[in-house]
Amino acid sequence: MTAVVLASTRFAPLSHEVAYADTDAGGIVYHGRYVEMAERSRNAVLKALEVPVAEMKARYGVLFIVRAVHATYHRPALVGDVLTLTSGIVAAYEVRATWRTMVGRGDERICDVEAQIAAFDPVEGGPCLLPEDLMARLRAAPRLPPVRQGPAMRPEAVT
Amino acid sequence: MTAVVLASTRFAPLSHEVAYADTDAGGIVYHGRYVEMAERSRNAVLKALEVPVAEMKARYGVLFIVRAVHATYHRPALVGDVLTLTSGIVAAYEVRATWRTMVGRGDERICDVEAQIAAFDPVEGGPCLLPEDLMARLRAAPRLPPVRQGPAMRPEAVT
Amino acid sequence: MTAVVLASTRFAPLSHEVAYADTDAGGIVYHGRYVEMAERSRNAVLKALEVPVAEMKARYGVLFIVRAVHATYHRPALVGDVLTLTSGIVAAYEVRATWRTMVGRGDERICDVEAQIAAFDPVEGGPCLLPEDLMARLRAAPRLPPVRQGPAMRPEAVT
Amino acid sequence: MTAVVLASTRFAPLSHEVAYADTDAGGIVYHGRYVEMAERSRNAVLKALEVPVAEMKARYGVLFIVRAVHATYHRPALVGDVLTLTSGIVAAYEVRATWRTMVGRGDERICDVEAQIAAFDPVEGGPCLLPEDLMARLRAAPRLPPVRQGPAMRPEAVT
Repeated sequence: MTAVVLASTRFAPLSHEVAYADTDAGGIVYHGRYVEMAERSRNAVLKALEVPVAEMKARYGVLFIVRAVHATYHRPALVGDVLTLTSGIVAAYEVRATWRTMVGRGDERICDVEAQIAAFDPVEGGPCLLPEDLMARLRAAPRLPPVRQGPAMRPEAVT
Repeated sequence: MTAVVLASTRFAPLSHEVAYADTDAGGIVYHGRYVEMAERSRNAVLKALEVPVAEMKARYGVLFIVRAVHATYHRPALVGDVLTLTSGIVAAYEVRATWRTMVGRGDERICDVEAQIAAFDPVEGGPCLLPEDLMARLRAAPRLPPVRQGPAMRPEAVT
Repeated sequence: MTAVVLASTRFAPLSHEVAYADTDAGGIVYHGRYVEMAERSRNAVLKALEVPVAEMKARYGVLFIVRAVHATYHRPALVGDVLTLTSGIVAAYEVRATWRTMVGRGDERICDVEAQIAAFDPVEGGPCLLPEDLMARLRAAPRLPPVRQGPAMRPEAVT
Repeated sequence: MTAVVLASTRFAPLSHEVAYADTDAGGIVYHGRYVEMAERSRNAVLKALEVPVAEMKARYGVLFIVRAVHATYHRPALVGDVLTLTSGIVAAYEVRATWRTMVGRGDERICDVEAQIAAFDPVEGGPCLLPEDLMARLRAAPRLPPVRQGPAMRPEAVT
């Protein structure tokens, strides 16, 4: 499996104003909600790359499926906060890509979501290679460094 | 920071029947939904341990906050599937615990969710130690091994 | 359009323990969440009637689509509350049925959700009659009286 | 109770691009999701009126609570659809207001959500009058006619 070099480009972050629907009784955004925000943000980047998710199957014969999600929470966000969602690709291979979405509020880091997305062939019902044309478009996606995992989530620290 | 030895106990898994509300247009359970299921499953274990989340603040003066979530998706689940949610503690320290929830369908593994939960002092507004009485109860929680991370999410594989 | 007389039967209510995922920063269950609970409760009744929603299309060639939802909120519910969800049919016609779900906590009324559900033919892409066999099964569903609308939602009060 | 005359003003509709998170296995937006969209849209109008929901309690000593929601579904919406959310007030009294949110896609009507919102005094723990200054601001909200209920949801048709 060969890593693909991605060109860095700039895309406008998505803005998300926190509603009561996003929060929980702790008074802050519910931790599961950031996973949805990350999806919206990745969709916006894909749309800017002219590969809207809704047309993936018709155009390329593939679907994207989420294989893993890692979310790290830095600070709580509150009702009315205007969050900025910035997504980019951390690594891309022929069969999958790792995306990162940084959720911020002004200069503050609120949350990081990494999602590993794989190509799936709905006809064969199994994993497949990303079509070359799609791969070429992904190369134009913004690039982000991976989230540095804190010591707490490192496997060796779990005893 | 000292690791705490946890006694293993058995708790009945929670049952969750997949509704349309849980699914997405891909025809399967939306990946973000498993994060909510994991919360319900941890709550059920805590209730069995006689530390219901709703009374955490009044009884112990602490809140649990989620610091990180790692979800790994093995197989899709469909509307009408009856999923079993089994939660246990992977590691516990004085200031935080890592929980794992295994989502299954019969003998099949559907999803694993690991959540790192920290104690938070709502008066001081910062992290705090888990009260000893609470810690003692957590020792009686079921114990689970950590999820083995696939090569794709290992930091060194991300290039 | 002829109203169909439904036999009254008793079905066990579904139990739903409120998680943080269900609540909002007001400290109570988010109003939109009761719509999901109502779906789970209707699904359980349909399963008890041996017409699980997941098999509706394969068995009867129809899908159920929601045409309208009316939710009335009586009292707030909190994290840890154990809610009971009781669903029944208010009225059924050849093309649609109105379901009601009563959400309670012990003797207290928390919320009522009425949903108007229509039969939809996915091949023709339009509304259709409920198949006679399905209709016969729905006749065995529990029956509930309609929710009495308060003066505030009566159209004439809206000026 | 006296009806308050509202001046009509124009506010920009909110745009909402449908993500997988919004949809269900029927391939369309889940019916409960429109309730959340309506909240976001009302919040945007309130923000334009300079009464952001997050500051309601601190500024006016009141909270808004949802007493009832009526959603009517006209057409399905799909992943990638760009929906427009237009909210306005249908009727306002000293103790409550009825809002309507029209969800559209281009010229098509997708969904209507009416929500009855009441003022709540968190100190007294009961309903209260809307403060005069807040009432004055609501008078500047866009005004919308009530949703015409179809025959199916009229109480007299339910037999």
